[in-house]
Amino acid sequence: MKDDPLVVRALRGATLERPPVWFMRQAGRYLPEYRAVRKTCSFLDLCHDADLACEVTLQPLRRFELDAAIVFSDILTVLQAVGRTVTFEAGEGPTVDPVRDAAGIDALVRPDVSDALPTAPETIRRFRRARPQTPILGFAGAPFTLLCYLVEGGGSKNWTHVKRFLYADPAAAQRALDLLADVVGDHLQDQVDAGAAAIQLFDTWAGALSPDDLERWALPSAARALSRVRGAPRLYFTKDTAPALSRLHQTGADAFGLDWRVDVREARVALGADVPVQGNLDPIALFAPPAVIRRKVQEILVAAGPTGHVFNLGHGVVPETPIEGVEVMVATAREGYAAARAALAAT
Amino acid sequence: MKDDPLVVRALRGATLERPPVWFMRQAGRYLPEYRAVRKTCSFLDLCHDADLACEVTLQPLRRFELDAAIVFSDILTVLQAVGRTVTFEAGEGPTVDPVRDAAGIDALVRPDVSDALPTAPETIRRFRRARPQTPILGFAGAPFTLLCYLVEGGGSKNWTHVKRFLYADPAAAQRALDLLADVVGDHLQDQVDAGAAAIQLFDTWAGALSPDDLERWALPSAARALSRVRGAPRLYFTKDTAPALSRLHQTGADAFGLDWRVDVREARVALGADVPVQGNLDPIALFAPPAVIRRKVQEILVAAGPTGHVFNLGHGVVPETPIEGVEVMVATAREGYAAARAALAAT
Repeated sequence: MKDDPLVVRALRGATLERPPVWFMRQAGRYLPEYRAVRKTCSFLDLCHDADLACEVTLQPLRRFELDAAIVFSDILTVLQAVGRTVTFEAGEGPTVDPVRDAAGIDALVRPDVSDALPTAPETIRRFRRARPQTPILGFAGAPFTLLCYLVEGGGSKNWTHVKRFLYADPAAAQRALDLLADVVGDHLQDQVDAGAAAIQLFDTWAGALSPDDLERWALPSAARALSRVRGAPRLYFTKDTAPALSRLHQTGADAFGLDWRVDVREARVALGADVPVQGNLDPIALFAPPAVIRRKVQEILVAAGPTGHVFNLGHGVVPETPIEGVEVMVATAREGYAAARAALAAT
Repeated sequence: MKDDPLVVRALRGATLERPPVWFMRQAGRYLPEYRAVRKTCSFLDLCHDADLACEVTLQPLRRFELDAAIVFSDILTVLQAVGRTVTFEAGEGPTVDPVRDAAGIDALVRPDVSDALPTAPETIRRFRRARPQTPILGFAGAPFTLLCYLVEGGGSKNWTHVKRFLYADPAAAQRALDLLADVVGDHLQDQVDAGAAAIQLFDTWAGALSPDDLERWALPSAARALSRVRGAPRLYFTKDTAPALSRLHQTGADAFGLDWRVDVREARVALGADVPVQGNLDPIALFAPPAVIRRKVQEILVAAGPTGHVFNLGHGVVPETPIEGVEVMVATAREGYAAARAALAAT
């Protein structure tokens, strides 16, 4: 375990002097060099070209002292793999040709996953050759979050279509979740086999559900996906599910990504003190003056403590984020737990 | 207390055979008769005309057996009263001419509240004459939620401008919150003086904050507003703050509105078993088949128990909601706690 990368050790519950640091969407629009690449190709082109995807995966590592990369990809590639058309218009969210009945669900394709989704594993292989000293995380969208986009046809404020579908035809919804879970699980395993040091399952919209629906739909399908993954720590990220934290163990995940709405100290009580967690700075705190960012990062380090903690944002970095804010965050987190305790004790 | 309306008794912690029932945005776009009125006037006209506002306040009571009305108004009238221009475009959210610096904050008007905000109290007086048998609730937006719209200039996904302002100029932000709290508090007291049986403070966007920022900004300013209100139970509604439920007592509110993400049973543990709560059906559950709606309402009744519980949605009813779904919800809640227990025991 001593030879494992820092991020793997933290995700396995090790006690460390400083947390490993990476952050969600670290390869993304807040970086001018990313925007420059995007002038040459569409977002989906980028997701399906391992050379370009490897390049943007590397970009944040050239600027910041990060302890992990995350493969550049998009969760909706899985919906393409099951036979749907996905489009991204500039400045808009994604659009999926929606499926809203049992016939549509039963017409979804069960692909050969390695054939249908080769780019993320290939990007991981290229990244490992280009930068063997930095671990890379694989990821996928969780089955319920993918079902949201599949049924709704894109993002949504209220997720009316997907919830109506769950309630009106639970058997068909379950078939869709089962299919998505199997594809997602195999895709994650392909990424581990390609060299991913850990994987993260993003269940962003699980938090749109009431606790009973969360337990009925989101958590069992996430568990089904994660049960297919061996050989690397498995992180489960949700947003807005803090009231249900203790339930998240139903996914069988090894570690849990926390959004910024929860106090890490309280989350550890809910999850169990020795359960590894990741997070959880408010991404918008990166717009604050440096002293405020430093203080907030130090408070998270002290609240999380040195055992089983990966430092991250509580959600993806937003495109307008000042790079100086990211620099302050990364530097402060790297100073470690003792420095954070001392800084807070001095104020 | 026996002579008080059912909703007041529940908000004071009484044990009842069935919960009082009302729901957020019950006077609103899901009703064809409301849409008919809106063809004759703008949304803001409606908020500033006590005759029209009284009419739409009455509309849902003609359809459903509800135990309370809520005055038709909008939280942004308070921003007009402090000197800002508010507009509503059809199909869009509201727009406010934004204030993003200390000079703008210090140029805000401290109005004579009764002069500047006469319509909601007058609507309450008219409603009481028109329908004395039904209690009516007053309401206002909480200071932090109003600051969100004031600084951002409208709704937002990430609330970048308002958070940046909090971090960059906390003294000016505090002055704005103090001013808003005083105006909001006086406006709520005017509504109580006009005959409101209870009031609800809506802090919809408090849930965008991390717990430390919630405690620093949203809760103290809500407390300042509520401290100015006497003579009626005071409800505090937030969304996405379930991880911080025990902190909400810092507002000094008498009762708490719960969103649909929290299990009522667990919320009662966090808040204290004898603290009155309101909620909390997922508004999108109203799109489900009748049997699913019945079951979900029954589960909430059993989880909440008969002491200090007002039945409501966990957020406002959405415009596309089928009226039949509302009918099933209201009828099931009115059947009461014993019927709900029996129905669940039988399955």
